[in-house]
Amino acid sequence: MTGKELTDAQKQEVQRQLQIIKRGAAEIIPEDALKQKITQSIVTGKPLKVKLGLDPSAPDIHIGHTVVLQKLRQFQELGHEVQLIIGDFTGRIGDPTGKSETRKQLTEEDVQHNAQTYQTQLSKILDFSKTTFYYNSSWLGELKFDDVLKLAGKVTVARMLERDDFAKRYAANQSIHVHEFFYPLMQGYDSVSLETDIELGGTDQTFNILMGRTLQSAYEMKDGQVAILMPLLEGLDGTQKMSKSLKNYIGIDEVPNEIFGKTMSIPDSLMLKYYALTTAISGESLQELREGLEAGSIHPRDAKMKLAKEYVRMYHGAEAAQEAEQHFITVFQKRALPDDIEDIQISGELLEAGPISIIKLLVSMGLQASNGEARRSIEQGAVKINETKIMNIHESFHPQDGDIIQIGKRKFVKIKRV
Amino acid sequence: MTGKELTDAQKQEVQRQLQIIKRGAAEIIPEDALKQKITQSIVTGKPLKVKLGLDPSAPDIHIGHTVVLQKLRQFQELGHEVQLIIGDFTGRIGDPTGKSETRKQLTEEDVQHNAQTYQTQLSKILDFSKTTFYYNSSWLGELKFDDVLKLAGKVTVARMLERDDFAKRYAANQSIHVHEFFYPLMQGYDSVSLETDIELGGTDQTFNILMGRTLQSAYEMKDGQVAILMPLLEGLDGTQKMSKSLKNYIGIDEVPNEIFGKTMSIPDSLMLKYYALTTAISGESLQELREGLEAGSIHPRDAKMKLAKEYVRMYHGAEAAQEAEQHFITVFQKRALPDDIEDIQISGELLEAGPISIIKLLVSMGLQASNGEARRSIEQGAVKINETKIMNIHESFHPQDGDIIQIGKRKFVKIKRV
Repeated sequence: MTGKELTDAQKQEVQRQLQIIKRGAAEIIPEDALKQKITQSIVTGKPLKVKLGLDPSAPDIHIGHTVVLQKLRQFQELGHEVQLIIGDFTGRIGDPTGKSETRKQLTEEDVQHNAQTYQTQLSKILDFSKTTFYYNSSWLGELKFDDVLKLAGKVTVARMLERDDFAKRYAANQSIHVHEFFYPLMQGYDSVSLETDIELGGTDQTFNILMGRTLQSAYEMKDGQVAILMPLLEGLDGTQKMSKSLKNYIGIDEVPNEIFGKTMSIPDSLMLKYYALTTAISGESLQELREGLEAGSIHPRDAKMKLAKEYVRMYHGAEAAQEAEQHFITVFQKRALPDDIEDIQISGELLEAGPISIIKLLVSMGLQASNGEARRSIEQGAVKINETKIMNIHESFHPQDGDIIQIGKRKFVKIKRV
Repeated sequence: MTGKELTDAQKQEVQRQLQIIKRGAAEIIPEDALKQKITQSIVTGKPLKVKLGLDPSAPDIHIGHTVVLQKLRQFQELGHEVQLIIGDFTGRIGDPTGKSETRKQLTEEDVQHNAQTYQTQLSKILDFSKTTFYYNSSWLGELKFDDVLKLAGKVTVARMLERDDFAKRYAANQSIHVHEFFYPLMQGYDSVSLETDIELGGTDQTFNILMGRTLQSAYEMKDGQVAILMPLLEGLDGTQKMSKSLKNYIGIDEVPNEIFGKTMSIPDSLMLKYYALTTAISGESLQELREGLEAGSIHPRDAKMKLAKEYVRMYHGAEAAQEAEQHFITVFQKRALPDDIEDIQISGELLEAGPISIIKLLVSMGLQASNGEARRSIEQGAVKINETKIMNIHESFHPQDGDIIQIGKRKFVKIKRV
């Protein structure tokens, strides 16, 4: 199929889809194959099959997970179909070495229960009329030894040892058991079995997703799947990948006030990334928001409240969103503050200089005696700005007239422009 | 079970068996486990299960293979039972990468045919009342993916890459495909499945056989199998391992005259090794033979003719052995020689000095002009001593009165003591 055969309308549609799909993606491998697949889909009217693998042991979806889910949703809005794979085969096996505590063997009931939870949670993001759930045990569980050998024969040991974590462990003389090589092979075989066109994942999934591409070619499917790799979202601490184990997450199943409050603690510096990757905001609106924040015409706190309200709306509905916002304003912004907050006068120059290190700010305002003291206060969770706890000693803040800084339970000051 | 409970007769029997089993073995791992197993077998009256794996693609047994077969036979004479595994599962799979020409996929018929050939050939060495044939497809073919993962989870990648050939290929950046890791795992799993006590193989099988020991422990059999590793037998060239592909072998299915003639071309230096490892000669007779050869009371040619006759007897019967010997004497030792062979006089000193390099001998006798010429004549197969072609330029020979040296088709000389 060549460009020649396309009508102008079709060409435009290819461009439109490409633009939407590429937005926010960290990497697309290979990009020209993506264009080909979209073109083919438009010409033939056949939707693309877009796959995401789900860990059967961890069904609590948080905002970090929604980065890929939002991208899937975009595919659905473009008319494509989503394949959700519940990796129950792996989960049912557990860890054959018996050494890992984290990979416990799941029972049939665990898997069923987790799948149910996934369905409930994902229905809030995906269009279920264009979503099919699969259990990979239904094909992997049927493979016999000779099938497995055929699968293993498609890849070399050296290629496997290129995977980041394997390479590191091998170099450090830490055990890698032979069965571990099969986790990427299984994930790749899922794509063979389902004839997947496109697989989505975080950038930490690059190796595994490209394995699907390799295996599809090895099993003589004409062209291997395309990998769309989404950025990893930092959690509330602003530095580490959002995850349940690090407790720096916002769960989409948490109660509205919790979602709202946690969102308010996102570092300002990450807010636009959260908007871009985890909401359905349009390209234009995102651009407006960016410009408004830069120009100072939109206050970061207001933008963050809007984000918090949007999350609650997405996962609990409009009414809950309204209530959560009201609750936050009442409890934190009004009631929690004493009536008589001391003003600290700050020069207009400083206010206009842009964001500065919070540690520096606290010391320069005379609120803390030294950088060390300021750092310890932040580490102990004792510093709040505008009712939001500061989680990270490296955080910066752009002080504005009226901002309220709190240290410990009782010390409050309000910034006043001189 | 401790030594205390054994009667004196039992203790003696343990020692007797140990001595026979250890004779000729290159390595036994671990040796004390062998003693324990023998003791247990004697006390309980339960024979040991002694395993040998057979390559389903190469049923033409040669004298090199008989090294382990003779050891199996000894086990049978001690009352133990032999498990012969036809590795049809591996053979039926072929090479999953499709790259290796040497590992062609065998059909069901190939495997059946080869198994039949094995039975015919092995019946000449083993006691079939104490031998059971197994096809490993009957258990390996039944394994499903989760069983395979369990198997693969028992071993680390680093351990696998310790295997000699893997280590070399990995270091040289040559491809190792992941399925290749399964060949030792399959061989080891055979021992799990059959609860093997002892596995035999050449020293080149050390890794694979110890894998069986590892896997038996991993599958919680009380004590893993014992590895008995036999030396590799050099072929007719005297240096490389006997093998079909190198054409330096004596096949047990070859016609009597061929077996006899090929045996006569074994280098003198290897004759005792052939006797020890591939015949049923007793320890005492072997010692007598060694002493006779050293003292010069037994001529190497006579000892070799006895070996040749023994091979024909073992594989074609006593009558054929008699005939082959007669044929050799008639055709080669008598008729083939001209009536009037020139004598070359050699000092008694030289004759008593022991073996010397054949190249040196030819030059010092004036039969060849230089070491280079002598080497080339040997390489071209033009040099015979007592009707036996010299295969190796490094060979030594102990000249004796009456020995006949032939160069090319027409030049004959007879050694005459001065």
